[in-house]
Amino acid sequence: MANNSTPLKAEIISVGTEILLGYITDTNATYLSQRLPELGIGNYRVTTIGDNVDRLTTVLEAACERSDLVVITGGLGPTEDDITREALAKLAGEIPILDPKLNAHLNQIFSQRGIPMPDRNLKQAEIIPSADPINNSRGTAPGWWVKTKGTLFIAMPGVPREMYEMWEQEVTPKIHQNFLSKDSLIKSRTIKTFGMSEALVDEKLGLLLRSSNPTIGVYAKSDGIHIRITAYGKSSNDVAALIAPVEQKVVNLLGIHVWGYDEDTLEKIILNRCSDQGKTVSIMESCTGGLLASMLTDIEGSSKFFLGSFVTYSSQMKESMGVSHNIIEKYGAISAECATAMALSAREKTGASIGIGITGIGGQDSVEGKTPGLAYIAICDKERSKVREGIFPINRQDFKLRVTRTAMFELQGWIKDIADV
Amino acid sequence: MANNSTPLKAEIISVGTEILLGYITDTNATYLSQRLPELGIGNYRVTTIGDNVDRLTTVLEAACERSDLVVITGGLGPTEDDITREALAKLAGEIPILDPKLNAHLNQIFSQRGIPMPDRNLKQAEIIPSADPINNSRGTAPGWWVKTKGTLFIAMPGVPREMYEMWEQEVTPKIHQNFLSKDSLIKSRTIKTFGMSEALVDEKLGLLLRSSNPTIGVYAKSDGIHIRITAYGKSSNDVAALIAPVEQKVVNLLGIHVWGYDEDTLEKIILNRCSDQGKTVSIMESCTGGLLASMLTDIEGSSKFFLGSFVTYSSQMKESMGVSHNIIEKYGAISAECATAMALSAREKTGASIGIGITGIGGQDSVEGKTPGLAYIAICDKERSKVREGIFPINRQDFKLRVTRTAMFELQGWIKDIADV
Repeated sequence: MANNSTPLKAEIISVGTEILLGYITDTNATYLSQRLPELGIGNYRVTTIGDNVDRLTTVLEAACERSDLVVITGGLGPTEDDITREALAKLAGEIPILDPKLNAHLNQIFSQRGIPMPDRNLKQAEIIPSADPINNSRGTAPGWWVKTKGTLFIAMPGVPREMYEMWEQEVTPKIHQNFLSKDSLIKSRTIKTFGMSEALVDEKLGLLLRSSNPTIGVYAKSDGIHIRITAYGKSSNDVAALIAPVEQKVVNLLGIHVWGYDEDTLEKIILNRCSDQGKTVSIMESCTGGLLASMLTDIEGSSKFFLGSFVTYSSQMKESMGVSHNIIEKYGAISAECATAMALSAREKTGASIGIGITGIGGQDSVEGKTPGLAYIAICDKERSKVREGIFPINRQDFKLRVTRTAMFELQGWIKDIADV
Repeated sequence: MANNSTPLKAEIISVGTEILLGYITDTNATYLSQRLPELGIGNYRVTTIGDNVDRLTTVLEAACERSDLVVITGGLGPTEDDITREALAKLAGEIPILDPKLNAHLNQIFSQRGIPMPDRNLKQAEIIPSADPINNSRGTAPGWWVKTKGTLFIAMPGVPREMYEMWEQEVTPKIHQNFLSKDSLIKSRTIKTFGMSEALVDEKLGLLLRSSNPTIGVYAKSDGIHIRITAYGKSSNDVAALIAPVEQKVVNLLGIHVWGYDEDTLEKIILNRCSDQGKTVSIMESCTGGLLASMLTDIEGSSKFFLGSFVTYSSQMKESMGVSHNIIEKYGAISAECATAMALSAREKTGASIGIGITGIGGQDSVEGKTPGLAYIAICDKERSKVREGIFPINRQDFKLRVTRTAMFELQGWIKDIADV
């Protein structure tokens, strides 16, 4: 294992025949490749190997020769072709034995689910003496933290949401405790924007992108473009002093497109602002098909502000929920006027402080002589209303997601503006 | 190089520091992983390595030892950090020299673009004696087809659209000509199930999982457990004859849990069955927050059967949408009775043939003295209704997804049963 003064040399191993057959794309490797440099650890190689204990053992042996840290995902399931535990045991020259604590924990998970634990899950309660288990809060497979032959192996499940959670909650703090010197600090600050392309952000940031400490990375995400500023230094103050002026520059250059920082999500910002101001929200949405309601209810506490949504997919349903027949006849169902009427009806029918109406064309064909991809998003409260018109991607799922994200971006801006008045 | 009777053993190497840093996800490897088995070639490993000539050469040397065919993408650009040509030359012990034909072709590309060829692009016109160039119809970087030390190396550009075109137009025919017998075929059949754990499927399939031609793989997906049967043979008939009896056995063992095959999705099956029978569907959902509506509208044509959804997040909204106050008072909002009332109201309010009602506890805390994770899914038409009770994961997003998938599975079964009556 490297000491504090030289950076750790790491590699990633993804285990799974389904990756080698192209059934799934290895996004776990992408995720880990992003995380390692944030800890100041260099990633030198990614290997994907199938569910074969001898081939995996060969890969582990070679990795052991060249790396301080080997991060493994996959192969921790309960079935016969889950062979990561076996290969690590082979590498360490040890035999897995049943761990009573892990066994009790596993039995508890199954009893919560109201089903008996299948015998083959017992395998997930086995461990070798060189390994510490890593808690999996989202599934049955514990991770393994194994020090053997001078290298640290961290084995995590292949199911992405289990792996992300384990990496963030369990592994990252343990790496910090064990290997990173307290005065060699790496910190990142992420600025989140909406409504600009990656290329436009790149152009606006210009030479800033070439700086070295801090470095700046630009990432396209489903909730907009994220700009990550990463600096290293001897103390928290040092690092903060490096990041602050660059952050200010970035925020100045990107202006009103900036909506959040670091762990912020549009959902959380909307929830917090609504709770703070005692606002409630109702929706009438058609082309987004319930996705806006679903995203707003993805976080704990959403019932504090979200009353409900009318997913009025047909024109009849819009009308039976209060949109006047005249408006649809005069302007069409795909119109600013209809979106506004939907927002007003949603608000009226539920007594919410804020109403949102969304209508548009998510399919491939024109409707009412209007172009596919067109959508209108209306927001209203008891005093005002506004409508945003946009052309969104024609691919159906992308369309729904982008219209929904735009509505969320508009909603958080609306609540902020109310507060600023 | 292996002859026609034993399958070629291949591996993939992706070259690029931007992959190791997580800036891009390696979808080229996914693409090639899918293509190789179609040619009857086994893919045994994927390695990602940075833009470093020594490290790449080490990887090539190791690959040469174990594989008949090595497919490389990336590192063929004109810049200094494009090092695949250098590494292949090093491996072969040869020196790249300027090829007049490639040079003329490259100059032609640039003159078509109306710009002079930059000096550094000359590098792309160099080749070694062991290599044949592979035409790139979409960019300036020719591929290399290199036979050295008993292994075939195929190097292609990393830009996906250049690589796809080169693979399909140039490489695939050349592999066919050189190595494959015309009657060597690989085919897969996927059987999709819902409502069983991966471990339980494994247990039920037992020894079938150990068969070799066809092989059987078990994969956990968000819409249930998929079982993939893969066989190879000399003709389409041969392969079909190998798959059919195993498929029958799997279907018999897994029974009513089987809902689809191959490209089927729950959304598509529901859409097709509803369209065939002229059925329409409306929903009243609370704990799934609109996710069921959103998933049903993720595919083109959903407006044929889906009328809409009432996302009644609060009890007041349930009542204002037709659920009687008495039911909620007597049984609670989290009850089979409330779910049924929601399904009936959704149907009545919209005139749909089928109504669905969903209520449950997606949060971490008990509600009405009932346990987190509890949910009720009711389905009704004008004659009948049924309710399914279940305990689902407590993590909010997992809860929503699993309840929604269960409702879709129940709905497709309901429409099938109607048809079977």
